[in-house]
Amino acid sequence: MVSIREEDIKVPLDVPQEARETYIQNYMEITKGTGKMMLFAGDQKIEHLNDDFFGEGIPADDNDPEHLFRIAAKGKIGVFATQLGLIARYGMDYQDVPYLVKINSKSHLIKTEQMDPFSNQLYNMDQIAEFRDNSGLKIMGIGYTIYLGSEDEAYMLNQAAQLIYEAHKYGLITVLWIYPRGTAVEDEKDPHLIAGATGVGACLNSDFVKVNYPKKDGEKAEEAFKEAVLAAGRTKVVCAGGGSDDPKAFLQKLHDQIHISGAEGNATGRNVHQKPLDEAVRMCDAIYAITVEDASVDEALKIYLGN
Amino acid sequence: MVSIREEDIKVPLDVPQEARETYIQNYMEITKGTGKMMLFAGDQKIEHLNDDFFGEGIPADDNDPEHLFRIAAKGKIGVFATQLGLIARYGMDYQDVPYLVKINSKSHLIKTEQMDPFSNQLYNMDQIAEFRDNSGLKIMGIGYTIYLGSEDEAYMLNQAAQLIYEAHKYGLITVLWIYPRGTAVEDEKDPHLIAGATGVGACLNSDFVKVNYPKKDGEKAEEAFKEAVLAAGRTKVVCAGGGSDDPKAFLQKLHDQIHISGAEGNATGRNVHQKPLDEAVRMCDAIYAITVEDASVDEALKIYLGN
Amino acid sequence: MVSIREEDIKVPLDVPQEARETYIQNYMEITKGTGKMMLFAGDQKIEHLNDDFFGEGIPADDNDPEHLFRIAAKGKIGVFATQLGLIARYGMDYQDVPYLVKINSKSHLIKTEQMDPFSNQLYNMDQIAEFRDNSGLKIMGIGYTIYLGSEDEAYMLNQAAQLIYEAHKYGLITVLWIYPRGTAVEDEKDPHLIAGATGVGACLNSDFVKVNYPKKDGEKAEEAFKEAVLAAGRTKVVCAGGGSDDPKAFLQKLHDQIHISGAEGNATGRNVHQKPLDEAVRMCDAIYAITVEDASVDEALKIYLGN
Amino acid sequence: MVSIREEDIKVPLDVPQEARETYIQNYMEITKGTGKMMLFAGDQKIEHLNDDFFGEGIPADDNDPEHLFRIAAKGKIGVFATQLGLIARYGMDYQDVPYLVKINSKSHLIKTEQMDPFSNQLYNMDQIAEFRDNSGLKIMGIGYTIYLGSEDEAYMLNQAAQLIYEAHKYGLITVLWIYPRGTAVEDEKDPHLIAGATGVGACLNSDFVKVNYPKKDGEKAEEAFKEAVLAAGRTKVVCAGGGSDDPKAFLQKLHDQIHISGAEGNATGRNVHQKPLDEAVRMCDAIYAITVEDASVDEALKIYLGN
Amino acid sequence: MVSIREEDIKVPLDVPQEARETYIQNYMEITKGTGKMMLFAGDQKIEHLNDDFFGEGIPADDNDPEHLFRIAAKGKIGVFATQLGLIARYGMDYQDVPYLVKINSKSHLIKTEQMDPFSNQLYNMDQIAEFRDNSGLKIMGIGYTIYLGSEDEAYMLNQAAQLIYEAHKYGLITVLWIYPRGTAVEDEKDPHLIAGATGVGACLNSDFVKVNYPKKDGEKAEEAFKEAVLAAGRTKVVCAGGGSDDPKAFLQKLHDQIHISGAEGNATGRNVHQKPLDEAVRMCDAIYAITVEDASVDEALKIYLGN
Repeated sequence: MVSIREEDIKVPLDVPQEARETYIQNYMEITKGTGKMMLFAGDQKIEHLNDDFFGEGIPADDNDPEHLFRIAAKGKIGVFATQLGLIARYGMDYQDVPYLVKINSKSHLIKTEQMDPFSNQLYNMDQIAEFRDNSGLKIMGIGYTIYLGSEDEAYMLNQAAQLIYEAHKYGLITVLWIYPRGTAVEDEKDPHLIAGATGVGACLNSDFVKVNYPKKDGEKAEEAFKEAVLAAGRTKVVCAGGGSDDPKAFLQKLHDQIHISGAEGNATGRNVHQKPLDEAVRMCDAIYAITVEDASVDEALKIYLGN
Repeated sequence: MVSIREEDIKVPLDVPQEARETYIQNYMEITKGTGKMMLFAGDQKIEHLNDDFFGEGIPADDNDPEHLFRIAAKGKIGVFATQLGLIARYGMDYQDVPYLVKINSKSHLIKTEQMDPFSNQLYNMDQIAEFRDNSGLKIMGIGYTIYLGSEDEAYMLNQAAQLIYEAHKYGLITVLWIYPRGTAVEDEKDPHLIAGATGVGACLNSDFVKVNYPKKDGEKAEEAFKEAVLAAGRTKVVCAGGGSDDPKAFLQKLHDQIHISGAEGNATGRNVHQKPLDEAVRMCDAIYAITVEDASVDEALKIYLGN
Repeated sequence: MVSIREEDIKVPLDVPQEARETYIQNYMEITKGTGKMMLFAGDQKIEHLNDDFFGEGIPADDNDPEHLFRIAAKGKIGVFATQLGLIARYGMDYQDVPYLVKINSKSHLIKTEQMDPFSNQLYNMDQIAEFRDNSGLKIMGIGYTIYLGSEDEAYMLNQAAQLIYEAHKYGLITVLWIYPRGTAVEDEKDPHLIAGATGVGACLNSDFVKVNYPKKDGEKAEEAFKEAVLAAGRTKVVCAGGGSDDPKAFLQKLHDQIHISGAEGNATGRNVHQKPLDEAVRMCDAIYAITVEDASVDEALKIYLGN
Repeated sequence: MVSIREEDIKVPLDVPQEARETYIQNYMEITKGTGKMMLFAGDQKIEHLNDDFFGEGIPADDNDPEHLFRIAAKGKIGVFATQLGLIARYGMDYQDVPYLVKINSKSHLIKTEQMDPFSNQLYNMDQIAEFRDNSGLKIMGIGYTIYLGSEDEAYMLNQAAQLIYEAHKYGLITVLWIYPRGTAVEDEKDPHLIAGATGVGACLNSDFVKVNYPKKDGEKAEEAFKEAVLAAGRTKVVCAGGGSDDPKAFLQKLHDQIHISGAEGNATGRNVHQKPLDEAVRMCDAIYAITVEDASVDEALKIYLGN
Repeated sequence: MVSIREEDIKVPLDVPQEARETYIQNYMEITKGTGKMMLFAGDQKIEHLNDDFFGEGIPADDNDPEHLFRIAAKGKIGVFATQLGLIARYGMDYQDVPYLVKINSKSHLIKTEQMDPFSNQLYNMDQIAEFRDNSGLKIMGIGYTIYLGSEDEAYMLNQAAQLIYEAHKYGLITVLWIYPRGTAVEDEKDPHLIAGATGVGACLNSDFVKVNYPKKDGEKAEEAFKEAVLAAGRTKVVCAGGGSDDPKAFLQKLHDQIHISGAEGNATGRNVHQKPLDEAVRMCDAIYAITVEDASVDEALKIYLGN
């Protein structure tokens, strides 16, 4: 585990003097003092409706929203990302969990063939800060999704820029989810396009940018992904976990992203919560070990298997 | 009748300290201290224009808006939901009725084939709170309808999130009506989709979410509905009554929803108000008996029949 | 002439305490103490451009906007409805006329086949109240048109609800013009649909709602119209005059609307102003006699004929 | 030259007491005490891009924006209308020119076949008033263009009504340019339609309304135009100059508009600035002579010819 | 090198008295006291995603956003234009660089055939000024792109006018990028159309307007460009550099623009940053020499070649 020093953190200059200390504390907490973030993503109840929580191969636990909070409380994580509503409903019983409020969300009912995607912000930053203060919870950051190349890109770029600017005024850490999507986007996983997305994240001043792992015939993903990590500059890149994977393959991929591509963390949802509680917690711990504690894939796999 | 204790109420964390007491009182009153809500729905004069109030099989009483207030005053209910306009016109003569302001409404003239549905908010929360204070009426909550999967979903999710956040600041109880509808929605009554809808209600932090009762070939509705009740977590699920039914079948369905599926109340409109006053009142009392007083279907039917 | 007592007026509950007296005074003045309103409608210079004011069969007087003010000053009316602009230009010379500001307007150039109708508000209520106070004129109410079933219905319902809520805070009387119109509307004059429109007026809390007189094969209009009057409850229904009619037929129709259907007034434009000044004034007085003074058709006709 | 007296000016009633004196002074200055306005229109650099300023038959002078200011300073005019930007750039050197800020503008690149026209406001009235006060310039009025019958008519009617209401609060004079245009408009120059446009100008409370000169087979324009002048009532009508004309024909047309049709001024752009400075100044003076000084066409022509 | 005197600067009249000094200082600094501006354009990470920074023929350095800052720090420039986000991330290490915040940006994923371009503002001016004050950086101006002739032109004209008006209140210098683009635009490089664009820049009160260099069969660009320079009046015209060019040809073109066409500077991006650091710095210096120091093409080329 490699620690960073507070004085080495490049606090972005839109963080005003009076919020610097809060920003640094949030940054250290969210990355456990390592600069690397293990984000547990639990925003799918709007994004995918109940598809990720109920059905064949998904344990019954997962249909109870509290499952997410139980994992976040027992597993090792950097931060748990979900909608304000769920945090407001369960936070009183999970006060030690570090939270990141996912500010926009949409359902997946409308496909791109029908209409380009637009995900609208649900709250403004003043409300998030007020909620943080009223609830006493550890609200440490905010998240926002941009569909780059959508016909509504202009509105999402604006909302993202505004939210990040205002979040920094409150000392909050920001994560952008950027997915190229829309009529104009031919190949959402193209490495060069994903590098474009991480660059947009940098221009919008996000602390972290979460993108899909690239995929291109004839290229190794972990090599192709380097372009995106470099293009982001000082904005740190984390990778979406995507659908449920074989655990070993999943952990290997994560290890590659960090140690070969240069990613600074991960954002995992389904690969964690679509498991019974104990197993989900062990998966969290395994991911955390690779991301934050510099473990090897084998070490992590042992953690997952409970050895 | 099973009472809940005030200290057991999980007050959502966006309710600020100074509004907690109001929230708890409203919650206890609206559920008659049981946690179960009997909502009398009277918002159809915009939603369905005069179709629900005049025509074959509908008693003449029903074409007078005051019919709704007479029922709400004489029948046993948890709360009467209707537009602010009607409350402002009749409230002076029905001051003891507990009210819930339905904040958005649209007519049914435009069908989905022409355009996806959008129901716009008519008032902001400051106006509702001001109206509560100026009128001295028992305004205890607000309601809002979301058409999930509509091309305007983004705007309704935003309005709903905003209104709930602001309503809680005033200590008001919130009910979301969530109906999947639009070009993208193939089967509005699909149990899995309805479970998606209740999950959205939870993510938006609503106290109650009202959905249509699911329907799927080869499945018992009361069983299929369980997925939706569980997916909502701490947000309570109530079922729309739908069109007028045979009383016994209607009461049995309601009993199943509560005792088999786990619903925490009901929202009934046409099955009540499309009856002459006395009969409507007895139907209210019968529904209330099942919902709040833990009556059997037979007991409720006797109440309805005036035995 | 049947007088009402101030204490019998059901002041809607969104009128705050400090505006009740103003509301009651405006209501009494606008209905001449009878609860019945004779509204002289002069908003057509935007709605129909110059078609109603110049052309075959229209006297030359009518092309001067002052014609409307001359009639309003000399004829017996409850209130004169027109745009703020004309009131601001002529009001200094017609200070005794009771005015109602028509807040939204559109031209008739675009037909429904091209685009569904949207009539946008021109002013906000604070401006209207400021204008009332600055001008010293008798501004007693506001009017707004909704095209029910239009693809922009959502925006007009919102504007109407907002304006009525705010107008009542200033003690002003409100009149909604509600016309079903748009691609989705097959029969604008259907009695059941018009009853839907008056019900919407009630839900939006308007004091008066002006609709088109219904028309249906095989039904007497005055009978069919009863549904609409009843559906509006405590919101009073008045009928649009429509295009110029034979005076006797016009007065008979008006008498039927009030004495058979139960309408509480009328809103007349072209049947008044498309006449030379003297004749227009006499027509006002005749309409007023039926509406407010309980005259018979024959008595009214004599007034019109100057006997 | 016929003078008007200040006490005869009908100050519109939305001008508050404290702005009356400013309004009257602006009105007297802009009309040189005669009630007639010579408006020099110089807003075409956005409206027509460089087409009016560079090309065959246009003198080289005209491609320098300062040409407009030189004319406005040396020629006799009532007011010079152009965008705020140009005024801000040249005003320090042309402090004696009376200015009218044209608040909205659009380029002519998109034709009606592609999309109906929408011209958006560039500034709000508080900014215009602030600019007036900061710059110390003689900002005496504002202008706004409405495309009547456009699918965006609703937004332009709203902006125009708002700007006029607010301009009057600052004591500024208002000029509406109203052009029927859009898919729904078959004949933009139809005299009856243009009378509709001037009537709209009156309903929106503008001090002046500028329209195109009507044109109809078999009718004399100067006769046909009377309908529009009368329909505007107390709002004064001025005519657009249109494309460059033969000087004598142009001056005759102007004389007819005023002395036959009853127009109260003119708005001329290309017929002035598409000439070398000296000639342009003489044309200004000629137009001014007819408009304000009651000159005959021959007298005006002599002025233009420098005799 | 020709210096200008502060007292000769025509400060636009929307700059209030209290901001004049700041405006003049920014103007002098950005033009190095010569009135000519060398703008280093680094906003392509959103505009062109990663296409300009990674790929064949582009040195590896360029994929690190810090490359831009290294150049801006070591090369001679008037101002470095990029998004606020990058400035906030790297500014602490590059405090001496003069910055211009590019306020709007869009990706190039959607082509005009699919939808006309709209580039939305990301921040408002109060935020930019707050950022300037909080960061202590040399934020000297703002930039905004307008797509003239786009179906969303109306919104961009409004945003540009607003931002310039507000920027001047803070004493900031403004640069408009104006590109004719959209379904309605047949030839984006037409000299006459580009002259229209610079004229729009003048009407919107921008200090500088950046356009594409015109191109027309049978015309010399440097001659054809004169129309645009003249049409802009007191607003200064600078030319976009466009794609990477042969250095000598590029420098010759720049020299022509300034010495033949009359441009007052340049805006160069790819021709600078798509080179290794040392070479990029030498190219900056060469461009600067022509723009600001009045060097010949040969002198500049020597600088570039490091002779």
